[in-house]
Amino acid sequence: MSEPVRVGVVGMGTVGSGVVRLLVESADHIERHAGRPIVVAKAVVKDVAKARSVDVPGGHLSADYHDVSRDPSISVAALLVGGLEPARTIMIDLLEHGKDVVTANKALLAEHGPELFELARRKGRSIAFEAAVAGGIPIVAAIGECLAANRIESIRGILNGTSNFILTRMEEDGADYADVLKLAQEKGFAEADPSMDVDGTDATQKLAILAHLAFGVWVPWGEIPRMGIEGIDLGLLRYAAELGYRIRLVAVASRSDGRLAMRVAPALVKQGTPLAETRGAYNAVSIVGDAVGRMFFHGLGAGQMPTASAVVADIIDTVVGRTAITFKTTGVLSADSPAARIAGVDMLERHFLRIRVKDRPGVLARITGILGEHGISIASVIQHDASQAGDATVPLVIMTHPCGSNAIRKAVDHIDAADVVSGRSVCLSVLDE
Amino acid sequence: MSEPVRVGVVGMGTVGSGVVRLLVESADHIERHAGRPIVVAKAVVKDVAKARSVDVPGGHLSADYHDVSRDPSISVAALLVGGLEPARTIMIDLLEHGKDVVTANKALLAEHGPELFELARRKGRSIAFEAAVAGGIPIVAAIGECLAANRIESIRGILNGTSNFILTRMEEDGADYADVLKLAQEKGFAEADPSMDVDGTDATQKLAILAHLAFGVWVPWGEIPRMGIEGIDLGLLRYAAELGYRIRLVAVASRSDGRLAMRVAPALVKQGTPLAETRGAYNAVSIVGDAVGRMFFHGLGAGQMPTASAVVADIIDTVVGRTAITFKTTGVLSADSPAARIAGVDMLERHFLRIRVKDRPGVLARITGILGEHGISIASVIQHDASQAGDATVPLVIMTHPCGSNAIRKAVDHIDAADVVSGRSVCLSVLDE
Repeated sequence: MSEPVRVGVVGMGTVGSGVVRLLVESADHIERHAGRPIVVAKAVVKDVAKARSVDVPGGHLSADYHDVSRDPSISVAALLVGGLEPARTIMIDLLEHGKDVVTANKALLAEHGPELFELARRKGRSIAFEAAVAGGIPIVAAIGECLAANRIESIRGILNGTSNFILTRMEEDGADYADVLKLAQEKGFAEADPSMDVDGTDATQKLAILAHLAFGVWVPWGEIPRMGIEGIDLGLLRYAAELGYRIRLVAVASRSDGRLAMRVAPALVKQGTPLAETRGAYNAVSIVGDAVGRMFFHGLGAGQMPTASAVVADIIDTVVGRTAITFKTTGVLSADSPAARIAGVDMLERHFLRIRVKDRPGVLARITGILGEHGISIASVIQHDASQAGDATVPLVIMTHPCGSNAIRKAVDHIDAADVVSGRSVCLSVLDE
Repeated sequence: MSEPVRVGVVGMGTVGSGVVRLLVESADHIERHAGRPIVVAKAVVKDVAKARSVDVPGGHLSADYHDVSRDPSISVAALLVGGLEPARTIMIDLLEHGKDVVTANKALLAEHGPELFELARRKGRSIAFEAAVAGGIPIVAAIGECLAANRIESIRGILNGTSNFILTRMEEDGADYADVLKLAQEKGFAEADPSMDVDGTDATQKLAILAHLAFGVWVPWGEIPRMGIEGIDLGLLRYAAELGYRIRLVAVASRSDGRLAMRVAPALVKQGTPLAETRGAYNAVSIVGDAVGRMFFHGLGAGQMPTASAVVADIIDTVVGRTAITFKTTGVLSADSPAARIAGVDMLERHFLRIRVKDRPGVLARITGILGEHGISIASVIQHDASQAGDATVPLVIMTHPCGSNAIRKAVDHIDAADVVSGRSVCLSVLDE
């Protein structure tokens, strides 16, 4: 039998505890896939005295990550600390000390990826990060390896389980955003501070990583247009349903006229299509490749064991040597990854508009006139009777034919400046397939 | 720049031509993923004089596969000849001459896998076969590598595009089996001889391969209970729809009481679930792992370029060295793979029965009595008025509560022997999620 591989687990929160549990409870199964035993040599925690749901074998706990980085018998480290610091400092220390690193920290990669990958390359080490995007769905391997023969044409993903849980519950229960968010926090689907989830930051960071794998360019996540779900109210969900759609927070990266267009925003997705039927805390990714056509992946995008499943798969890949090969040949996040300018790249799509108009004659003509001036033609209009006599404004809902994102943005600015309009209009893309 | 890798393509039918096209047209892209150029050194065809849709670079055609196996400059061979012979003889010759082999031939692997993999191992070579199951869907990599940390609990797949195309068209167009089969042949979705597709052989061979990857056991495909779609008529599809289901040819492998149960058969799948919404020539696989939960994959399972996408991904994996690692560490199809006995293993499921009964008093009591004697309880019954006065028999449709497959089989034999029943009853499993 081959010598056991000694792994250090840095961070014993939800995911870290899941990884230790899987390595212990499925040890024989994992050994069969790795060709040798994988043992937890050390787990790094904040407080070694705290009671834990998972026992670390032999009680090898430490509050100091140097006990992993400076232990020459440990070859692989799983970095399962969230946020940027001290995660970045710890990753640098692990790489400097010759560890191959596996991580689930998408924020760290999206923010400091090029620097960290460069360091890993210089040290002859690898960084594996399947768990950083879409949890248990093997989307990093799918894009980086399995679809390697394809030129990817587009990626669409539901990449944030918290916001998908909120949108699904609002839609199915008719409950308000605030109430559902509270429920999600109680159920453990949303963090105490859910702002990175609901404002689209988390999905945007994941999209930056996926787009890099698919298109070979590096787009700093802060440059990707982003809109969260905070502005999605029940009225919007009801209008969408009336038109045969659901609303999902969709991350999009696609080639358009040889340029790359990207964004994260709520969009109307047609009922019955796979993204529309992705519910609750599930994630989904739809990819179009020039050879393979449309591929669709669906699975749990977060949670303890699905994420641990991806981390341990990466540990196995690292132990057997597949990660080192992939890391070397594909040049992931290498210094010569070209940067892409995505600002202003047009996406031709149908759009959904909700405009709050004053209930007076000539308003519809005025709004449709502005759209016409911007070359935007209208597919359908919904205007219901004002729900209560005396309502100062009524919602006007318009579905457009396909039009450029730049044109619709200008038209909406123009509409919102009109005296018959009150407040800011909502403009969402419509995905029909 | 690294030396080019020289690849031999044996077989220039639909898939082989697609592979050559992809290697030529996406050469720069593929080189980036492989770390070095991949060139087609030789293509083996039946008739070198025949006009082709794809030009082989340099016109390196041959009618003799020995021109690949005996060319020491060729390190990887794509074996894209269907059927058992001469494919088996060619694969043995390629391995004997030290080639790593990539293949899409699921019949060959299902029939001769253990022998061929043993030879490859002895020669220090590898066999890659992502394209053999579910075409462009990277299900072999998903099970073998990405979900390696999981104990797989079940696999359900729509693995044959031809039969799925036929069932979908029958359902959507209300067309007869024979008419749709003819259309599928005209469209190129079905072979001139479609018997291996419609009788479930193709799906069963693929299931044998997937189950081996997922459960580590080798089940000769001929031992897997199998039922094709030839007996599915419009009446069955209409009853299924009335109950909220569609009919799909579903391949199933699942653990049940510590034993493995497998089968390929048409089943009722609930409308709105991912398998039910898999239409036309698409394939889909749903896998449950103990850590990752339920994962779902959907994509084109056949056709020239989706299959070529998987073959070329395997060629890249072989060139960079990932295949050799996987082949070695996971011991795919090694001589010590345990055999599994699946005969008689019970699956607890709901069942749908269509029984042709003589239209006379007491029939329903008689049938339900027989089911009761076998411990099977009934969830719902449909019996419409006989469509024409004078009909000798009327269909009686029964949905059961969950019951063992052995019990229902015995009950149906008993029912079919009753004097009030005419012809053979149809008994299909019901998959509600």
